[in-house]
Order: sequence, then structure tokens, then C-alpha cells
Amino acid sequence: MERIPILTMGKLLLVTIQVDMHDRLALALQDDLTNRIVKDGARGVLIDISSLDVVDSFIGRMIGNTAAMARVLDAETVVVGMQPSVAITLVELGLALTGVRTALNVEKGMALLARGGTV
Amino acid sequence: MERIPILTMGKLLLVTIQVDMHDRLALALQDDLTNRIVKDGARGVLIDISSLDVVDSFIGRMIGNTAAMARVLDAETVVVGMQPSVAITLVELGLALTGVRTALNVEKGMALLARGGTV
Repeated sequence: MERIPILTMGKLLLVTIQVDMHDRLALALQDDLTNRIVKDGARGVLIDISSLDVVDSFIGRMIGNTAAMARVLDAETVVVGMQPSVAITLVELGLALTGVRTALNVEKGMALLARGGTV
Repeated sequence: MERIPILTMGKLLLVTIQVDMHDRLALALQDDLTNRIVKDGARGVLIDISSLDVVDSFIGRMIGNTAAMARVLDAETVVVGMQPSVAITLVELGLALTGVRTALNVEKGMALLARGGTV
């Protein structure tokens, strides 16, 4: 598979990351996601990382950058399903994902966006 | 990654298949999914296969079996996002996914389940 699928749910886009990210795949995802935000007029992006046991600085930066790109396109990003070990690693790597909102699961993430009036 | 994540949305479970399935992964998915249907009391299962360009008889049978397992647990399965080439291959393989409902995308799949009174 060459691309990570992006699912549309109303004004929300949902991305489930379940494969190891490499440079080309991350760039393709950012490309697809920004295009879809514009095309679908999406207001919120949910990135599910529940299947990631480990995270490195590359993935951490990729998530932060993707959220920043969504923000300049007026879409709010919520990272959902982060495992405790990933949270520990991210902070240890100095990547506290500042400006990125998080929620324990997809439902809570959707509720967070709905509460904030985003979608 | 060892397992395919299953996302809960209300009474729905959402599975996005984006990696090549092998025996062990397929068995783990069926195991996880049946457990989650029972644990969460899910009434509907959406299986997104939009990132699959090709499909073989193993994946075809796996999808059919998973839907049958969900059905005996009183949950309806909808396969969403099937690409035209995959539809052609499935029928050519003699796997017409009888008894499995399909929809063009996640939103239409959710609408289908809602209309049928499943969720």
C-alpha cells in the first residue's frame, strides 16, 4: 500500500496510522490531507495512533507539522489513542506536541471538536 | 505493528485495513473484533478497504468470514470504499461477498446502518 487512507465523516477527516512511517509516506499523507481539507471543507482532523507502540522523533515531528498545516487551513487536529509509552517517549524526545490537542479515543476526540464548535 | 486497530464510534466499530493481511494478522483481527463486539455491545461494523488496490482469495474469504462472525453476534457488517478493480477481482475469484453489505464510503456505510435501524 502506498498511501494512508483518509476517511471523511461529515466535516471531519479521520486518519488511522498503523504502518511504520517513512519519509515518502509521511509526505504523501501531508499532501493528501491538506488537499482533502481544502476539497471537503473539513474543519477537524482526527489522527488515531493507537496502534503505535513506539514513536521516534520523525513521527513526532510529522504529527506536529501535519497539525500545523491543518491549522493554517482552518482545521483543528486532535491526536487520539496515544499509548502511555508513546507519551513518555515524545516528551523525552523534547516533542511535547505543543498546539496539538489530544484525546483518549476517537469518540472523545469527536466530542472535543464538537464542544469547541469546530464541527 | 502486530494488530489492526479497531475504533469505537457509538454502537459502531470501524476497522481500516491498510496493510497486507497474512494469516496471523487476519486471525488476530477476527479475535479482536469479536471480542470488541461483545465488550462494547456493538451493533455495526464498518470495514474500510479503500487502500486495497488488489485483493486475493485469502482476503476475500477473511472479509466474508468476519462478517459472518459479526452476524452471529448480532452486528451488521458493511464493507466500505471498495475500489472497482477489487470488485472485479472478487467476482472473478468467485467471492461475491454474499450476505455482506457494501457502501461507497464510510459516511454512506454509517447512513446505511442508521437507515436499517442497526445503530
